[in-house]
Amino acid sequence: MGDNSGKKILLAHGSGGILSHRLIEEVFLKAFTDPLLAPLNDQALFDPPNPPSVSKFAFTTDSYVVSPIFFPGGDIGKLSVCGTINDLAVGGAEPLYMSASFIIEEGTELSVLEKVVDSMARTARAAGVRIVTGDTKVVERGKGDGIFINTAGIGVVTDGIELSPARISPGDSVIVSGTIGDHGIAVLAHREGIMMDSPVQSDCAPLHGLVKDILINAGGVKAMRDPTRGGLATILNELASQSGTSILVREEAIPIREEVRGACEILGFDPLYLANEGKLVAVVSGESAPGVVEIMKKNPFGSDAALIGTVAEEPKGKVLLETSIGNRRIIEKLSGEQLPRIC
Amino acid sequence: MGDNSGKKILLAHGSGGILSHRLIEEVFLKAFTDPLLAPLNDQALFDPPNPPSVSKFAFTTDSYVVSPIFFPGGDIGKLSVCGTINDLAVGGAEPLYMSASFIIEEGTELSVLEKVVDSMARTARAAGVRIVTGDTKVVERGKGDGIFINTAGIGVVTDGIELSPARISPGDSVIVSGTIGDHGIAVLAHREGIMMDSPVQSDCAPLHGLVKDILINAGGVKAMRDPTRGGLATILNELASQSGTSILVREEAIPIREEVRGACEILGFDPLYLANEGKLVAVVSGESAPGVVEIMKKNPFGSDAALIGTVAEEPKGKVLLETSIGNRRIIEKLSGEQLPRIC
Repeated sequence: MGDNSGKKILLAHGSGGILSHRLIEEVFLKAFTDPLLAPLNDQALFDPPNPPSVSKFAFTTDSYVVSPIFFPGGDIGKLSVCGTINDLAVGGAEPLYMSASFIIEEGTELSVLEKVVDSMARTARAAGVRIVTGDTKVVERGKGDGIFINTAGIGVVTDGIELSPARISPGDSVIVSGTIGDHGIAVLAHREGIMMDSPVQSDCAPLHGLVKDILINAGGVKAMRDPTRGGLATILNELASQSGTSILVREEAIPIREEVRGACEILGFDPLYLANEGKLVAVVSGESAPGVVEIMKKNPFGSDAALIGTVAEEPKGKVLLETSIGNRRIIEKLSGEQLPRIC
Repeated sequence: MGDNSGKKILLAHGSGGILSHRLIEEVFLKAFTDPLLAPLNDQALFDPPNPPSVSKFAFTTDSYVVSPIFFPGGDIGKLSVCGTINDLAVGGAEPLYMSASFIIEEGTELSVLEKVVDSMARTARAAGVRIVTGDTKVVERGKGDGIFINTAGIGVVTDGIELSPARISPGDSVIVSGTIGDHGIAVLAHREGIMMDSPVQSDCAPLHGLVKDILINAGGVKAMRDPTRGGLATILNELASQSGTSILVREEAIPIREEVRGACEILGFDPLYLANEGKLVAVVSGESAPGVVEIMKKNPFGSDAALIGTVAEEPKGKVLLETSIGNRRIIEKLSGEQLPRIC
């Protein structure tokens, strides 16, 4: 839209009329350039993806309300694309198509929207995922907060891949793909204006390549999850309870950056409950575990991968943390809310 | 959740932790009961829908910010399900799966959320569409406005069906499935507290059954659209411009309820620009038109269907309105915003 500095989003940009059309043409179509989006119909139509090898379709959605919109290592646009890619990937699906829907507060700078949309487009393109349909609504000043984004995604699962907590059994190993808590601390520190010697960057990243590496090169992969809201502790609890097993993790084995550990100590947060946006937890058979860690380490998004625990029979549905001095304590799901608007 | 009167949504309901889990179990799962949703994974997995007869997949999304949340004839929940069904249906697709994502303002009554979710569940069940995946975020008081909903939908187009503005040609007829402006006036009157002798009800309804009736029983159907935001005038302009034809509509032929006409006169609105949520515009070959109108009239959602115009060669991309006294004037797309937060 040429020089848009100073221009602001008006209610009429959500009218469905001339200004809506101009916004679509000059911001969304320009950034998302896709022949499936270009007809601007109410729906995108695509060919059935290669039916013979597809065993399942995967479908997911997330809304993003992160505050602030821009943070070290990412922004709400990149987050909204990576988050949906990751929700498909941890189900073993290859992400193909994505929708993008915006709820924008009246008065938001048009240049801010453009920056967010460009970030979505770049992230999706780099990931090989197509944004093919969308929507924009505008709410009055004070009835929203800048930009909220919803993305939904469709992916396909290839024949023979089956990831499910139901497959987890005693003797399995638990692997995390890298350092935890980076996203939570990055957003929090930026939001609260906390000065750090070396600011922590969000780990926000698309993980479908890492998942593919693992699924192609290793057997024995039972289940995967991405530890976003609620953090590692909550996701491990969900895996334990869904599989009816017990998970024992060794505190010392969990990779945590020094800066994150330091920030947590000062601010009183437990890194086990901080959100991650570029990490996954994999439960794999005991014998596959060293190989899976090796495969992860070769991928840039898995370079700090570590074997952090094992699956046992009892206490069913519980997660135990073994501390560095050998004590064991039960760690629960996140209770209450420590960091609102983190994604 | 038992007696929830007085209980309110807290930020912790969006934490991803214990309260999020309870909300999912006790509100969403309880209402949406679906075996694909029940595993509570990050994605829903479903079998490839009957590949041999499927020529295309359809994918759509819309966010809903209607204010107020409840209005005569519907609510944001019903609207969010019907809107996505209709966006699939007008592409000729049979709607199959839907996602539901909520952005809730802290302090919203839990009972209000339950009422909205129940309405979504009832509407989806009656329509034969499955809600299989979802998400919930909570924003601080004053950073949202009650409940915003995003739905995305997946449908399948059967072999041989092809609806596209590109197929429109001079000589075609333009049909609307019923009275226009009902939704716009219903929401506006309720919002502004305007007293009417007989309050106008929103036409909010799922139209995939009506579309199926037409596609099965009539040939010559070229394109369909649902005249939501921007109204009939804007959608006709889009069809004319996308097809490079001219559309001539006769003012007298457009079905408008007396109450809507009256409200428009008093309030200074043009019904041609008011949103509809249970109406479709079909462009069909001239010879098919009377048959299509007859088929529509037999369906409860098409009982006021009418042939309102014809497609001509010139002036390309323009819509002409022939008034009752025989004058013709160009009607443009909606410019500006007459009714924000209508859907």
